[in-house]
Amino acid sequence: MSIKIQPEAITSLRGFEIPERLGFGTVMAPVMFRARYQDGRWSDGELVPYGPLALDPAAKVLHYAQSCFEGLKAYRCGNGVGLFRPERNAARMAHSARRLCMPPVPEPLFLDAVRTVASHCATLIPGNSGESLYIRPFLIGTQPDLAVTASRAYEFYVIASPSEAYHAGNMRLWVERQDSRAAVGGTGDAKVGGNYAASLLSIAGLKERGYDQSLWLNPGNRHTIDELSGMNFFAVMDGALHTPALNGSILEGVTRDSLLTLARDLGLEVHEREIDIDDLLALVASGTCTEAFACGTAAIVSPISELGDGERRYRLSQAPGPVAEQLRRALLDIQEGRAEDRFDWMQMVPLASD
Amino acid sequence: MSIKIQPEAITSLRGFEIPERLGFGTVMAPVMFRARYQDGRWSDGELVPYGPLALDPAAKVLHYAQSCFEGLKAYRCGNGVGLFRPERNAARMAHSARRLCMPPVPEPLFLDAVRTVASHCATLIPGNSGESLYIRPFLIGTQPDLAVTASRAYEFYVIASPSEAYHAGNMRLWVERQDSRAAVGGTGDAKVGGNYAASLLSIAGLKERGYDQSLWLNPGNRHTIDELSGMNFFAVMDGALHTPALNGSILEGVTRDSLLTLARDLGLEVHEREIDIDDLLALVASGTCTEAFACGTAAIVSPISELGDGERRYRLSQAPGPVAEQLRRALLDIQEGRAEDRFDWMQMVPLASD
Repeated sequence: MSIKIQPEAITSLRGFEIPERLGFGTVMAPVMFRARYQDGRWSDGELVPYGPLALDPAAKVLHYAQSCFEGLKAYRCGNGVGLFRPERNAARMAHSARRLCMPPVPEPLFLDAVRTVASHCATLIPGNSGESLYIRPFLIGTQPDLAVTASRAYEFYVIASPSEAYHAGNMRLWVERQDSRAAVGGTGDAKVGGNYAASLLSIAGLKERGYDQSLWLNPGNRHTIDELSGMNFFAVMDGALHTPALNGSILEGVTRDSLLTLARDLGLEVHEREIDIDDLLALVASGTCTEAFACGTAAIVSPISELGDGERRYRLSQAPGPVAEQLRRALLDIQEGRAEDRFDWMQMVPLASD
Repeated sequence: MSIKIQPEAITSLRGFEIPERLGFGTVMAPVMFRARYQDGRWSDGELVPYGPLALDPAAKVLHYAQSCFEGLKAYRCGNGVGLFRPERNAARMAHSARRLCMPPVPEPLFLDAVRTVASHCATLIPGNSGESLYIRPFLIGTQPDLAVTASRAYEFYVIASPSEAYHAGNMRLWVERQDSRAAVGGTGDAKVGGNYAASLLSIAGLKERGYDQSLWLNPGNRHTIDELSGMNFFAVMDGALHTPALNGSILEGVTRDSLLTLARDLGLEVHEREIDIDDLLALVASGTCTEAFACGTAAIVSPISELGDGERRYRLSQAPGPVAEQLRRALLDIQEGRAEDRFDWMQMVPLASD
């Protein structure tokens, strides 16, 4: 796999000034990685200046949502940059691609692309704890043809955003009993656009009603918890950690998996199981459930302070709670190089020398 | 609403040669309509040469599938061009847009756009029965921002494809008992990309197993019939016409509605109801169900010759059957101006004088 670095990409990087306020996912790095798939094979990849894609108006992605994506973070660590478990993202994106009949991006191409972007954009990563380069690989079907069939041409991009720590703050969740984000037998365990599109309406009206995110129930039974949009759900009951078991309509979060590993390692009792929403709300009301939190790549761990169900509101007694804080700290210490990488999660990439 | 016709659009039209073989939805007309939405308001629309869209790599449509579309046909009728019930497409696209938190395209803008494209592309419409200009309006979220929130910027396009009659032939359907195209409480009754993306995998493997399309069951109960991808389902039992009642996960087809109207007008007994797949298969096997067909804008009416369920195959005795043929003929006669437009379905648009 040879990757071409366009001279214009280096020029773009040199001319880039990091804005004072970054936010999360809003400031884009001035370069991007691109590879094309056609006639059954992948082109070599190249690092090019960030700029508009020229898409045919009939490109499949624009009509039939043939697209999948990933999100991961790079952290400044000494003279290099650390990637957190990028091979998990490569595997998940391959799974998402297969679900939508897209050719999986080969793992070496995926990893080379992410490393290339990370090593060239390392100097854009702010240096404070929690700050990172948010990396967004995505794959789109580009064949211009209105037939409802899989595209024969694809483009794979990796774009990146130097980002502040993502503080969701204490989150208030709305128990969504009407809408679904994905069907049983649908695309819920794949990171594809349609799941997010379906979730926007539920989320849109929340703020004015005093909520931050929707808590999605399983579309098959409508009473066990699946996930938030883009985050997995955890609760602490009688000191034990509980999270919904993977069931085909939950996205398997890399942070979820990492927290489960850390929790077991820390000696916590861990249960991956079906969690009935009514049981959970009763346990919150009785004080047996002391903490709840959501996790994801962006926010890592976000405490949940309240669950709203119709007219009723259920307050968690601890937000943030000690278990959430302990897990958050343990994970961030590994990601930022303060703790030993006992699970071999970090991949170090040297800075690009241009 | 003022629409600007770019001089380059006229030049593109003059220079366009209609290829000998058109297919369906593969040859694109050399012009397109474009309008933009920003800061809460729509720009004036313009007719421009067909060409690549310049989309920011972080545009919401590419990551979160914030897109919806429509499909309708224009027919050559005398000195003008006839549009079939375009106001239904305008209303449905507004419904789809709302489901994904997108601003509905105002009906006047939608209709002006479709009329503009149809009147300028009328001379590209082949003249034989069944041939038409397939018109594809679509709306996409373009704001470059990786947050999972609704876009604040949108682009609305109308592209078109001069097309041959779409002959699906006799279709063999696979009863899809595993995958779902949309969830209960999802986006099944909206014409949005995610539904189609979710359906590609099921459809992809069909040909080699001797099938043409998947027959989707309701994702809530997994045993009543919803639809095909992009087509509605009908069956004839004891001479009466049956079709699944709208239930929130079925797209309300304009052709479906039109066929129901025609069938009632022709004195047929019509039932919109839940149709259990096992009941249907038993009635096919016993010969009580004599015909089944699918309908949609592209194919109008496509006979179903066979239903496959696991290892078993159920053959329909009549494909095409007399009811399907009668309805197809009645509809096409109105669309192509051979029959009186008793339901006021056709909107005539004069040819553009350039």
